[in-house]
This record gives sequence, structure tokens and C-alpha cells, in this order.
Amino acid sequence: MAGSSVKPTPVLKDELDIVIPTIRNLDFLEMWRPFFEQYHLIIVQDGDPSKIIKVPEGFDYELYNRNDINRILGPKASCISFKDSACRCFGYMVSKKKYIYTIDDDCFVSGSLRADSVVFVSVSGDGAWNIMVDLKFLDPLFHGFLCFRELYLEKRYRSVVGMVAKNPSGEQINALEQHIKNLLSPSTPFFFNTLYDPYREGADFVRGYPFSLREGAPTAVSHGLWLNIPDYDAPTQLVKPLERNTRYVDTVLTIPKGTLFPMCGMNLGFNRELIGPAMYFGLMGDGQPIGRYDDMWAGWCMKVICDHMGYGVKTGLPYIWHSKASNPFVNLKKEYKGIYWQEDLIPFFQSAVLPKECVTVQQCYIELAKQVKEKLGKIDPYFIKLADAMVTWIEAWDELNSTAK
Amino acid sequence: MAGSSVKPTPVLKDELDIVIPTIRNLDFLEMWRPFFEQYHLIIVQDGDPSKIIKVPEGFDYELYNRNDINRILGPKASCISFKDSACRCFGYMVSKKKYIYTIDDDCFVSGSLRADSVVFVSVSGDGAWNIMVDLKFLDPLFHGFLCFRELYLEKRYRSVVGMVAKNPSGEQINALEQHIKNLLSPSTPFFFNTLYDPYREGADFVRGYPFSLREGAPTAVSHGLWLNIPDYDAPTQLVKPLERNTRYVDTVLTIPKGTLFPMCGMNLGFNRELIGPAMYFGLMGDGQPIGRYDDMWAGWCMKVICDHMGYGVKTGLPYIWHSKASNPFVNLKKEYKGIYWQEDLIPFFQSAVLPKECVTVQQCYIELAKQVKEKLGKIDPYFIKLADAMVTWIEAWDELNSTAK
Repeated sequence: MAGSSVKPTPVLKDELDIVIPTIRNLDFLEMWRPFFEQYHLIIVQDGDPSKIIKVPEGFDYELYNRNDINRILGPKASCISFKDSACRCFGYMVSKKKYIYTIDDDCFVSGSLRADSVVFVSVSGDGAWNIMVDLKFLDPLFHGFLCFRELYLEKRYRSVVGMVAKNPSGEQINALEQHIKNLLSPSTPFFFNTLYDPYREGADFVRGYPFSLREGAPTAVSHGLWLNIPDYDAPTQLVKPLERNTRYVDTVLTIPKGTLFPMCGMNLGFNRELIGPAMYFGLMGDGQPIGRYDDMWAGWCMKVICDHMGYGVKTGLPYIWHSKASNPFVNLKKEYKGIYWQEDLIPFFQSAVLPKECVTVQQCYIELAKQVKEKLGKIDPYFIKLADAMVTWIEAWDELNSTAK
Repeated sequence: MAGSSVKPTPVLKDELDIVIPTIRNLDFLEMWRPFFEQYHLIIVQDGDPSKIIKVPEGFDYELYNRNDINRILGPKASCISFKDSACRCFGYMVSKKKYIYTIDDDCFVSGSLRADSVVFVSVSGDGAWNIMVDLKFLDPLFHGFLCFRELYLEKRYRSVVGMVAKNPSGEQINALEQHIKNLLSPSTPFFFNTLYDPYREGADFVRGYPFSLREGAPTAVSHGLWLNIPDYDAPTQLVKPLERNTRYVDTVLTIPKGTLFPMCGMNLGFNRELIGPAMYFGLMGDGQPIGRYDDMWAGWCMKVICDHMGYGVKTGLPYIWHSKASNPFVNLKKEYKGIYWQEDLIPFFQSAVLPKECVTVQQCYIELAKQVKEKLGKIDPYFIKLADAMVTWIEAWDELNSTAK
């Protein structure tokens, strides 16, 4: 029943950083307070570094703007995108933790709260008021509520807030906890289990599943999904502006070895120690011919490398509530080259083979950069620049992460 | 609300046969009456041919016992298993329809009905009584009801009946209708869609899914799942005798190209024209060293051939209610060779390559039989016999099906 007064014991509290790219105030964090406030946040500020980003009180965070990135990486800062949420991967690089969870700051909704929408008020241990608001009036499809604390009381008639999705039983979904479960239990990339995740309570491997494969593989990535606004490309957004994802599919499954998928960066967890150096979000945004392919690029590179290294990638639960569709016209402009380039990129990644000599993620990534330059450089000079940036990224990664060891 | 008085318009009525292997009376069909009675049934009687199989009134069926199989196939009857539900594949061979749905006759429960368990009585158009019974008293996990007609009235205190599963909204699942939907819509074997079936109402392809792949591939197989008793092997049954599958995962997904899975024959639909000749259930049961691998064998052969031919295989919805666990001790005896053989079978099928010259399913299957003989024959002479039976099966298939064309 309670909202932000619920404080589940955080798992991996000292081993996980939450990375958030942003260009605005992080009011959306209020909604995530019960789930995030005991973790460390790495905020990567995109765009104008002179702008002040307000972070709600009580969160433990470090914040990097463009000046910080330039200062820390020097000339290698060229590999970090500007004016694009692809800049988030800088946060992966400076983290010193084993696990990363990254979430978009645009999981929010804007609207006017009416007095009668407040359905529940409680007082936290620290004396702050928690207010639960029924959100049906904002969007009839939304089956949840939001919680905020007294600092938002004055703004209660015009407020911008982030939202947590709910499962079919009406419970708020602790997305981070589910990602951690996904990352801590093995994956099954070598054979498909028809009852989905065999490590979940109440499930197991079915008849015909080889026993030698039941130990599974280490899980490198946990890809979570989104209720409400689906992650569509601009053409699909334009054709289906009203489509909403209302289906809660209660499962987590391993993407089989050899299979590529479109990885979305909106709600993503990964094991930084296993796969961090492959999580480069590419060159997007300012000065680049393409946008909105940062997470896709990372996903394709990462999957080829996980398949080579024998690591697993999961998709499915947890859901977050994605509130606001981005502008399809702006998206079309960012995406249109990607939409035809991806017709060549997918066959390229599907047939990419890494030699046995590549035994670290860094080696795999450098080899992949070489193949990108050779084979995709013919499509557009952009891929030559990208291949160089991939190498720079690994150099920067090793520089920042060698001292930590 | 109504039970057997519900008669949805049957789809593909003249293009689909329901194949049921059995050694007992088909009382379980009562439960399926609203969904099955307008289709044609092919009943393959296993075991003693002198035994009379009772089929509930009103169903349109043909029934084959061992004598019929021997008469129709002559010496080639040796490829059809005896005393094992693998004999069902004879039904696929004699069908003249484009689609097959096959279901086990052991989706039933045995128990005593109490007078107060009758919750609803109606009278059909044909004057028969329909009785709806709450089944909670049989199994507290069961969230459904069963319907039967007046011919069962006398037996109401001791009855054996089949059961239909229900979805989370409490509606009876029309398994056949869902299989038909799965078979009539394309598959996506070449790239994974994170929002699952993109052809389903309310869903689509997500950002990053190549447009050239959005037409999908023809669907050859629809593999349905089971609530209640999961399809576990004997060791898992022994270790987890009380485990029940209670999770309704509301999705259908394509098993990606290059990925094998354990295909269960309990609740299975397929396009006979596309893939029928690959649906051979092997040599099991009487006189054979192995049982309970009939559907697995068919699944592995079929998947390799579908991947070669560019056809899709789906798994997920629909669920049926699997009521009765088979005896794990008996199963262990049937399975134990399979349990260690499968450790070699999976790598064999994972690495099997069919030459480009194989352009029909029959050619693929004969080629696969050759590879089975060469590579698996070393493991056990059984595989040499099985490889020969695979060839015989194709000969028999072509013999019976050439006249039809």
C-alpha cells in the first residue's frame, strides 16, 4: 500500500551504480526514490555545461558535464557523443562498480494534478510527507500511481514526475531488483527452454534439455522492457501514433547464441566487469549524421562479443513505465540514415566471426572495430570515423580502469 | 459463461485434422467438444487392436489400429512405433489436410465429483444437458471448470475427464484457435523482436528491427505449452514431484534460426504441407531401447530443416491444462538412454548442415537420415535402425501422398 515509504533492502548496494544521462532537472527521481536512494548515481549531463542540473535531495551522486569529460579524457573525449544520450557510456567508464543500471530520464509525464487525485498520504521516518496520487486522470491507460515528497507539495497543481510501472497484481515493479536477479542468475544461450527462465521459482528445465547445459552461462546483460509507449522507430510512430504497450508478459528469457536483437538503452542492466568495454554507445548527435542508434550499436557489438565469450543476454522483465513519446519528426531526421544502413549492419553483425585469439572483451572490441572499418567503411565514411572512435573508447577505458586495479 | 454450448465459428474447418493417439476411451473429448466437434479427428489406436475405443457421440472421426496400419503400409509399417504415442505420426501421413493439430489424450484428471461441485446446468440445442463442474475440489491449483453432457450423468460420482485451461481473465482457452492464428501469421526467425510477436494486435516491430525482415517467414510449427503439470523428464519429476506450472506467460515467440528447443507433442500444431514429412516421431516403445523421445526427435529434425528451408517455428500460447503426471519410475526406464544420448544428439543437430541441393523437405529428411547413420550410428546401433526407419517413413509418406496430388 505504501509508496515511497517502502524501502526494500537494497541488493548489491555497494556493487552497482545507476547511470543517468540528462539535459534537465531530475525530478523523475522522486518516483524512483524508494528503489534508488540507497544506490550511488552517476549523472552524465548532456548539452550546455553551464546549465545547473537539479538533483532531488537525499540522493548520493556524482555529476559529469562536458567540461568534466573533456578534462578527464583529454583528446580521447572525442569518442563521447555530445547532445545525445549516447554520452551515458562515459558513466560506464568512470564507474568503479561491478554492475551498472541505466535508465532514461524521459520516463516522465507532464500534467496537472487535481486535489481529488491525492489518494494516500503518509509520513516517512525522516518526517517528510509522502503523497500518493492516482494517475488515471493523466492517462486513462495508466494503472498506477505516483509518489512524491513534501518538496513537491507546492507544485502539486503542475508537476513533472517519473513513474514506476505496476505488475498485473497492482504492485509497483522494483525494476532494479529484477535486473539484479537477472544478472545474478545464469543464462541459457545454447538451447531454448520452452518454460522460459529455468532458474525462476516454480520453473525448471523441461524434458529434452541436455543436463550438461543446465549450469547455464554467466549473464552479462539484462534488457528490460517498457509499458505504455513502445520503443518504435519514427516511421512506426508516425503510422501508429496511438499504439500503447499494455501487455505484461511475465517472463525473462535468454536471447539465444547467434541471434541479434534491438537493444534499447532505456531500462538496461549489465555486468560491467564481464562486458563493460563492449557497451560503447557510439558517435551520435552533434556533428554526426545519425542519432537514436547508440543503444542499437552497443547491442549488436555486445551480442557478437557475448556469443564469442560464452556470456548470456536476457530480455523481458522488468518493465518500466515509459510516459512520453519522443517527437517522430525529430526522430525521423535522426534515424533516416540508420534505417537504410541497418539493412547492411545486421548481415554484417550476423556474419561477424571473432578469432579464437580474442580472449578479452577489449581484444574482441578492437577486432570488431577493424572489421567495421574494413566492411562498413565502404557504406559511408561515418563508419571509418566510428571504427576509430571504438578504438579510442577502448584506450580511454583501459586508461581509466587500469589504475583502479 | 456457457460451457459446451459455446460453438465458435471454426476456422480452417475443412483444412485441419486433429490427430489423437490413444489406448483408452476418449472421454476427455467431452471437455474439448465446443472447440473440436466441427473438425475431423484422426484417432490412432495404440496397443491391442482388438480393444474397442469408445469415441463420444457427435464427433466426426476415422480410427486406425495396428491392423489398419499394417494393412495400409505393408512392410513399411515397421517405421511406425507400437505401444508408444509416437504412433501418432501415422495420422499425419494419412491426413489429406493442410494443417494438423495433435493433442495427448492424457490431459485428464480422475476424481470423485461431489453434488455441490455442479455449478451450472444448461440444455443444448440438441436437447442434451450440459453440466459445468467446479474443479477446485479435485486440485486446489485448478482454476477452471469442466463441462460434460448427459451421457456422463450416471457417472457423475466417478468420472474421468479432459480439461481446457483458462487464461488469467478466466476465459476458457480455445487452444486450436490460437494455434491456427500462430500458423496463419508469419514468424520472425532471423532477428529477435523484444516485444515478442510483432503481428499480434497492439504490437509491432521495435526500433532497430530491419524493415527488410518485417515480412517474416512462413510459419511451419506452433508449439503450445501446458499449465499445471510441467513436461519434465523423470529425474526432474522425481526431484520436484509437487512442482506445478502456474505462470501464464501471455506471449507467442519465434524460436530463432539456428536455435534448437525441446518440442513437446502434447499440444502441437503444424502446417503439414510445409513440414509434414519432417514430423516423424521415430522408433519408440515396443522393441526399442528408448521411449519419450519421439517428439524431441521430431522437433530437432524439424527445426534443422525449417532453418534450412526458411520456415518459422513458434512457441508459447496456447496453454492446455495438463492434469496427470506420468509415472516417473516408468519414465526413467524409458528415458535413461535418451538422457545420455541427448548429450551427443544436441551437438549433432546444432552442427548439422544441409546442402543447397536439398530443396524439398523430403530431400532434407533423407540427407539428415544419412548423417544420423554416419555420425550417430557410432553411439549405438539403434541409430542405424532409426536412420533406416527415417528413409522408410519418407517412402511411405510419398506413397500415400502422391495419389492425393
